[in-house]
Amino acid sequence: MSKTDKPSKVLAERAVVVGVGLIGGSLAGAARRAGVVARVTGVGRSRANLDTAVAGKLVDAATTDLEAAVADADLVVLAAAPEASVDLLDRVSAAAPKSCVITDVVSVKQPICQAAERLGVADRFVGGHPMAGGTATGAAAADTGLFRGRVTVVTPVHSTGKRARDLVVSLWRAVGASVIELDAARHDRVVAVTSHLPQMLAFALCALAGGNEDADAVRKLVGAGFRDTVRLAASDVDLWSEIARANSREIVAAMDAFTALWTELREGIARGDDPAVRRTMLEASRFKRQLDEK
Amino acid sequence: MSKTDKPSKVLAERAVVVGVGLIGGSLAGAARRAGVVARVTGVGRSRANLDTAVAGKLVDAATTDLEAAVADADLVVLAAAPEASVDLLDRVSAAAPKSCVITDVVSVKQPICQAAERLGVADRFVGGHPMAGGTATGAAAADTGLFRGRVTVVTPVHSTGKRARDLVVSLWRAVGASVIELDAARHDRVVAVTSHLPQMLAFALCALAGGNEDADAVRKLVGAGFRDTVRLAASDVDLWSEIARANSREIVAAMDAFTALWTELREGIARGDDPAVRRTMLEASRFKRQLDEK
Repeated sequence: MSKTDKPSKVLAERAVVVGVGLIGGSLAGAARRAGVVARVTGVGRSRANLDTAVAGKLVDAATTDLEAAVADADLVVLAAAPEASVDLLDRVSAAAPKSCVITDVVSVKQPICQAAERLGVADRFVGGHPMAGGTATGAAAADTGLFRGRVTVVTPVHSTGKRARDLVVSLWRAVGASVIELDAARHDRVVAVTSHLPQMLAFALCALAGGNEDADAVRKLVGAGFRDTVRLAASDVDLWSEIARANSREIVAAMDAFTALWTELREGIARGDDPAVRRTMLEASRFKRQLDEK
Repeated sequence: MSKTDKPSKVLAERAVVVGVGLIGGSLAGAARRAGVVARVTGVGRSRANLDTAVAGKLVDAATTDLEAAVADADLVVLAAAPEASVDLLDRVSAAAPKSCVITDVVSVKQPICQAAERLGVADRFVGGHPMAGGTATGAAAADTGLFRGRVTVVTPVHSTGKRARDLVVSLWRAVGASVIELDAARHDRVVAVTSHLPQMLAFALCALAGGNEDADAVRKLVGAGFRDTVRLAASDVDLWSEIARANSREIVAAMDAFTALWTELREGIARGDDPAVRRTMLEASRFKRQLDEK
């Protein structure tokens, strides 16, 4: 039963989730719970992680054989790292039935959407990006409530078919997410500011503090404010170096915009220009209040 | 009774706390509770806030008359904003008995320590900076447990007398803080990195996001990572523009060091230099782990 107490419509008879980690495992489990997938097979490389997913009832079955798993699938969710997901799209496009809808969850949308067009599967591929996550990884960290109340961005292209788009939007709504449709390029530009920029700031601040010549005093005087500001520095370096590659143009543009504002603030402080310094601080306060009111 | 179940030694018979806000109110209340002050008078400009402090048993009495309150004090704590505290030190030095120990709580130590030397009270003035706080203000936000387990930096100078230093260190220990003694210049250099830099980063990131041309999409795609990174942007603009003035040299130096590392990271991402990008991320991870192990 769905949360609205109507029997949920089955969106897919034979779904496959490739990569049963935090995101893939949570989505598989949440879709099963919501009753919108009749059967879900998990695909991965680690047998131990697949066993965890089966034991945790996130999936009905699990295998390391991608091609066999997708051979009769009607929905495939790619839930691997950004670059691996592009490779997987190639293999799934070749091995799955021509009617199979394919989606993904990676946080940079242009490379995989472009790959879909290149592979001739753009009519049945729809990119997705759930704005949810955590620093823990693997099926053991999966949580079927992970997407509840969160936003998932869905990035259809011009040639995306209505059936594929409706299916993917319905899937995310069924697991509790609110769906926003955005063009992939716009998505990548916006998340460069809302997600990739804070991530790079957290890495940079932590690297700077760690390399300080008075590191011992720095460590002792780190308080709650510093800790919150750098929380993201605990994120996975492999994943983030991939994201930096995949969205380098937009990340560099966002970093440059940051540098311009930062330099202006620095100049204001250096020359004791109180009105200029306060102006930046007040603009920040205004946006912060808008966020807190949401 | 102190937490160690020994009767606490009374450190001051007639203490005065000037500025009964979050920090001053918490310290007054915590010192009373610990039994290390026989009587505490709160001094402030807002009668309503002083009434709140008395009603909350943070102080024994309260007045708006600074000179009268300190006339027979043996300990005065200045708990106002940075610039006001320097002015207050001038007035308290003139009005309090020559034996009265004076301390403060502001987050930039050189200006007030230099003022103490200039005013000829450096033998009985000891700067202090509790690494605790919050975005709420006023006596109503006071919490007698605020300093428990936190660090307070105490910044004696060459001419600081042993009695003054011991009294202030004992006061902070009595309210649960662990005390670190640092030279005022070193304190200001280190907090520029651990406290003022994250604050400026939070202001800058929030101001940038708020001014984004696609502000609507930015607001929708802000997630938990962004929110943690900018938590400090809710801080008081009046206080922070004062801190930016008071510690401008060290803040500018810290901002420049950040810009250098930031530019290097940006260059690495722009030219696809994965090893360079990963090096910065891994340095950040290492420092983050050190913090999390504390």
